Amino acid sequence: MPKMKAAIFVEPDRIVLDDKPIPDVGPLDALMRITTTTICGTDVHILKGEYPVAKGLTIGHEPVGIIEKLGSAVTGYREGQRVIAGAITPSGHSYACLCGCSSQDGAGTKHGFKAAGGWRFGNTIDGAQAEYVLVPDAMVNLSPVPDALTDEQVLMCPDIMSTGFAGAERGGIRIGDTVVVFALGPIGLCAIAGAKLMGATTIIGVDTVPARIEVAKRLGADMVVDFKKGDPVKQIMDLTDGRGVDVAIEALGTQGTFESALRALRPGGTLSSLGVYSTDLQIPLSAFSAGLGDNTIVTSLCPGGKERMRRLMNVVASGRVDLTSLVTHHYKLDDIEKAYDLFSHQRDGVLKVAITP
Amino acid sequence: MPKMKAAIFVEPDRIVLDDKPIPDVGPLDALMRITTTTICGTDVHILKGEYPVAKGLTIGHEPVGIIEKLGSAVTGYREGQRVIAGAITPSGHSYACLCGCSSQDGAGTKHGFKAAGGWRFGNTIDGAQAEYVLVPDAMVNLSPVPDALTDEQVLMCPDIMSTGFAGAERGGIRIGDTVVVFALGPIGLCAIAGAKLMGATTIIGVDTVPARIEVAKRLGADMVVDFKKGDPVKQIMDLTDGRGVDVAIEALGTQGTFESALRALRPGGTLSSLGVYSTDLQIPLSAFSAGLGDNTIVTSLCPGGKERMRRLMNVVASGRVDLTSLVTHHYKLDDIEKAYDLFSHQRDGVLKVAITP
Amino acid sequence: MPKMKAAIFVEPDRIVLDDKPIPDVGPLDALMRITTTTICGTDVHILKGEYPVAKGLTIGHEPVGIIEKLGSAVTGYREGQRVIAGAITPSGHSYACLCGCSSQDGAGTKHGFKAAGGWRFGNTIDGAQAEYVLVPDAMVNLSPVPDALTDEQVLMCPDIMSTGFAGAERGGIRIGDTVVVFALGPIGLCAIAGAKLMGATTIIGVDTVPARIEVAKRLGADMVVDFKKGDPVKQIMDLTDGRGVDVAIEALGTQGTFESALRALRPGGTLSSLGVYSTDLQIPLSAFSAGLGDNTIVTSLCPGGKERMRRLMNVVASGRVDLTSLVTHHYKLDDIEKAYDLFSHQRDGVLKVAITP
Amino acid sequence: MPKMKAAIFVEPDRIVLDDKPIPDVGPLDALMRITTTTICGTDVHILKGEYPVAKGLTIGHEPVGIIEKLGSAVTGYREGQRVIAGAITPSGHSYACLCGCSSQDGAGTKHGFKAAGGWRFGNTIDGAQAEYVLVPDAMVNLSPVPDALTDEQVLMCPDIMSTGFAGAERGGIRIGDTVVVFALGPIGLCAIAGAKLMGATTIIGVDTVPARIEVAKRLGADMVVDFKKGDPVKQIMDLTDGRGVDVAIEALGTQGTFESALRALRPGGTLSSLGVYSTDLQIPLSAFSAGLGDNTIVTSLCPGGKERMRRLMNVVASGRVDLTSLVTHHYKLDDIEKAYDLFSHQRDGVLKVAITP
Repeated sequence: MPKMKAAIFVEPDRIVLDDKPIPDVGPLDALMRITTTTICGTDVHILKGEYPVAKGLTIGHEPVGIIEKLGSAVTGYREGQRVIAGAITPSGHSYACLCGCSSQDGAGTKHGFKAAGGWRFGNTIDGAQAEYVLVPDAMVNLSPVPDALTDEQVLMCPDIMSTGFAGAERGGIRIGDTVVVFALGPIGLCAIAGAKLMGATTIIGVDTVPARIEVAKRLGADMVVDFKKGDPVKQIMDLTDGRGVDVAIEALGTQGTFESALRALRPGGTLSSLGVYSTDLQIPLSAFSAGLGDNTIVTSLCPGGKERMRRLMNVVASGRVDLTSLVTHHYKLDDIEKAYDLFSHQRDGVLKVAITP
Repeated sequence: MPKMKAAIFVEPDRIVLDDKPIPDVGPLDALMRITTTTICGTDVHILKGEYPVAKGLTIGHEPVGIIEKLGSAVTGYREGQRVIAGAITPSGHSYACLCGCSSQDGAGTKHGFKAAGGWRFGNTIDGAQAEYVLVPDAMVNLSPVPDALTDEQVLMCPDIMSTGFAGAERGGIRIGDTVVVFALGPIGLCAIAGAKLMGATTIIGVDTVPARIEVAKRLGADMVVDFKKGDPVKQIMDLTDGRGVDVAIEALGTQGTFESALRALRPGGTLSSLGVYSTDLQIPLSAFSAGLGDNTIVTSLCPGGKERMRRLMNVVASGRVDLTSLVTHHYKLDDIEKAYDLFSHQRDGVLKVAITP
Repeated sequence: MPKMKAAIFVEPDRIVLDDKPIPDVGPLDALMRITTTTICGTDVHILKGEYPVAKGLTIGHEPVGIIEKLGSAVTGYREGQRVIAGAITPSGHSYACLCGCSSQDGAGTKHGFKAAGGWRFGNTIDGAQAEYVLVPDAMVNLSPVPDALTDEQVLMCPDIMSTGFAGAERGGIRIGDTVVVFALGPIGLCAIAGAKLMGATTIIGVDTVPARIEVAKRLGADMVVDFKKGDPVKQIMDLTDGRGVDVAIEALGTQGTFESALRALRPGGTLSSLGVYSTDLQIPLSAFSAGLGDNTIVTSLCPGGKERMRRLMNVVASGRVDLTSLVTHHYKLDDIEKAYDLFSHQRDGVLKVAITP
Repeated sequence: MPKMKAAIFVEPDRIVLDDKPIPDVGPLDALMRITTTTICGTDVHILKGEYPVAKGLTIGHEPVGIIEKLGSAVTGYREGQRVIAGAITPSGHSYACLCGCSSQDGAGTKHGFKAAGGWRFGNTIDGAQAEYVLVPDAMVNLSPVPDALTDEQVLMCPDIMSTGFAGAERGGIRIGDTVVVFALGPIGLCAIAGAKLMGATTIIGVDTVPARIEVAKRLGADMVVDFKKGDPVKQIMDLTDGRGVDVAIEALGTQGTFESALRALRPGGTLSSLGVYSTDLQIPLSAFSAGLGDNTIVTSLCPGGKERMRRLMNVVASGRVDLTSLVTHHYKLDDIEKAYDLFSHQRDGVLKVAITP
């Protein structure tokens, strides 16, 4: 049985590179040979044991690569084709998928819904930080990469860009809106790019790290709030002349950012939450107009599927958004443990790390 | 100066009937002679001092009556015409109104938004529990009552029906949805009627009072959960065979109902909140899929304005919904203090009280 | 090779019952044994040669039956299970499906879109007027029938009800709307039921056949216009006191109904077209406000897929809509040629014909 | 009675500058002293007698200026304030306004809807090509101009930009869409800018005039089709590799562009029409998939009101879109007849003409 290298979750605080069998290809699957992948903040949650996955699982959900082998029932692709797959890999046939909610895919469950069930790579099945990854429901998920685009140009599509843009889309941003984005990690930065792409005309970024702030400005932030320089809500109110924002995007996953996002809204505004939370949340009465404020709070899990990927690659190809500067570091798969060390400690101004087998 | 009788907030626990001058009519106003009005749960919050209003304010926001006098700049109506006005009286010209958010009307403020600012009657201006009420921005707010409809038939339109239906509308109910409504007071009962009117096919009501449950069934509830007979979330999950609901409507304003509504949702579901809360709220992590559940939480304040009233009276006229059974008691305005006593103590199976000057 | 009986298109004006091999079952397919099916107006277009299909094709797209055999890659079902499938059978994996447009499914085409491509049964693959039908992409399309519902109760779900309701849904009907439906054949009747289900409060049906008008009233029509008794647009304007309708649903497919629907709209109204047209259409300038009327015209092809079927069966199970009176005649499959004769000549007040093998 | 100069429609082919009384100011009005205005293609339709207006009417609907006098009931503004008003001036209180359809404002009519009724300036009341213009319903329509913006920077907001952007918005453009815009006059150019602002990633402009094509590229067109070099639909299909476009925007008002826009759509696509038509339109069966294509056709009349203007000025202030290059010529009001001569004959590469009293 042929072997491959894979980054495996062993136990909290230990992800190691080890050998695994190259997986068999079922009728609806495709085997993808990874050419580039990356590490996500969620992977660090897994590493730290904050998000539980099975011991022995291959981690990672952002694959760029080449089709090595197609399942017997898969048509419309050819082996050797260059593709990506989204972090979320919907089945296409669950009730959740068919009612427009494919990230909550519950294929195989009684009613077809499962919380975050569309997230399979590196969560419920082996992931992409390996030499090969098995893509389930290949016809739904494999998205051909245009020749003109490099691996690194499309590396943000499977998760970061899809999630960040979803923050803008689910916020219902309209032309002329004022938007704030809390936390300028890779997701927040993409939310800024997404907000600009949808026609927001005043975009405020909240962070404190100068390098992130600089990237945010390049991607569309018109103003920046350093939360270390005073209450961010007060600063946002000052910047908006007391009006508040139409849409606030939360991109961290803490009570502080969630609550501030709510407080920064104008009456009738929308809080679009992208963060992965690890504690209960509080909605202070005063931030919620006692329930009379016509507010909307939405949470979003990264949309997946090949149509989503196609659209995001369209954005890259159009030059409307250039995210290549988010890739600050490069590692070989053999050195992925070092990459985790760097990334999990947020050293050296790291934003995203490109991993190449 | 001619006088009229009005129910006035004196101090917490004291609303009294007293004399007040009949108000002057500004150019955009209309003076309405009240023929029927009613008491709302919110008025009881005011009575108890839980929701602050100015001492001396006339209470009430549900007017049915006759145009007594029109402002000099008001066209399109005639004195003597029978009309209602919504509990919320938008100006029609604030930025909030013009961006589709008229309950948050901030006419007169710098940016045109004010939390719950559209609610003026019995909150920031004199209300409808009186012989006369002054309707601001009359051309936006006066809605002629079809001759065929009685006062009592349209008495629920200004608030109860508009709010309850908004719970269904803002929940985005679609044909074939499963919906739960928490708390079957007048608002919750109207939410049930609204859910049915939008095509929900399984509607579950949660309450414990037999009389309310019976009305709920008449208005569209297919199943009922008595929260005294066990955890309502568990009961809802049992009734839906473990699936959960597409939309949960909260119609009380407590942590318990809010949290249960969230827990009753299928992944990707929507919580539509109508309650007026008096404490901070908690979103338990487990009820929120750590932020990855593609959930939506919306709050709604009663939509107002004459187009809204016209549509609601269309519903009444069509016979699709009959809410007359909600009027369980009748009082003269002279006896309104007795009506408050009955209503605030929820005695005698009271749902709504018709008050006639 | 085992044989079955099937209604086959031979040439214009000839659909005959003949023997065909029972089809082989591919990995993603399911073989369904038909227990009840029906004839659609579209089948009559095929019969008359107005809509071209391949000679030798089995006709019919409204299957109710039992799973006889499942493909090797199909999970989540069991043989012997009672199911329906929609008239439109999307693949679940085309770009069209993944962008919310599954009736235009172009699975297998370069870009994944094909006009009306989701309609396969009795159009591009063998259909349901047979003893067996092969259901493609079974996991997307097979929808289990609740035990409590009879075949005839769900017989309208695959096409008539899905199409008619889509007319209401795509028209964006809101609570309190005034709606007109042009032509009260089975589709138009379901559009009336759908309009009522979505909260329209004044529903006007346009036809001239007394039996159809009577069913329309039972399903929700508040008023009826007999187009033989004068210009229907004028009658609609009279009934609405000169206002016009919010939404007009066209359910026939002629210039006359299309144009009248457009003329019946209030400014800013929506024309929702369901008809299958056979000639170019004219939009008269005067009916179109020279392009300045903020109008919307939408066309809809019957939505398919198991989630859609599940919702429609929910409607049936809820008792909100009862369409059994639409089945006016019953035939054995052996007599299907007689059924076509009756149905295509619209004899004997026929609405829908139940066919049982 | 003080006089002012105004461009007056005398008869077809004659608009002349003449004296008129400065209008009286009603309680809800504001008198605006024009500092800059412009001529619209619609004004040329009026000049040519193709669009009928009353003889003696002042033409023009794009005012930039200073508040000279406020009506007695107008609050929230001060005399001397710099403002614009939209070409469409909704009342804020008609049923049309209150149901989100304010360009079809029928204030004063029985049911509150009137086709294109929101367009009053230079159509049903005196317009803006004058020294002064009376703005009706001033609190709905006056929008303060930020100090940092020049008259010319905001001159496109009242009509051109609002209309062009509406083409994109009503088309429902999503991130990653492919869009075509037919005809690159000022409206079409703004539609291109609007499409880009909403996240379209492939934008195709159709025209033949090199100067317009160049501006289109600057505003966001990724590709251009010269309709003189072959069938534009074929060229669009070639550019999109046979796929067609998601949204086609028509910005001229002819059968040719309307029909080509329809033919350029992918199945399920949307045609967003902005043109003012002067003949009946044909929908060819083949371009309409016989009604089975899940198509949408929408027409839009320029959205007005101060919130719309505020948003558009946000866009200008943000620098996201720079339309100043559309102003190709400048004239004094005294020379407006010469400006009409140039503009109506489309001489000298004219796009828009700034007129200053």
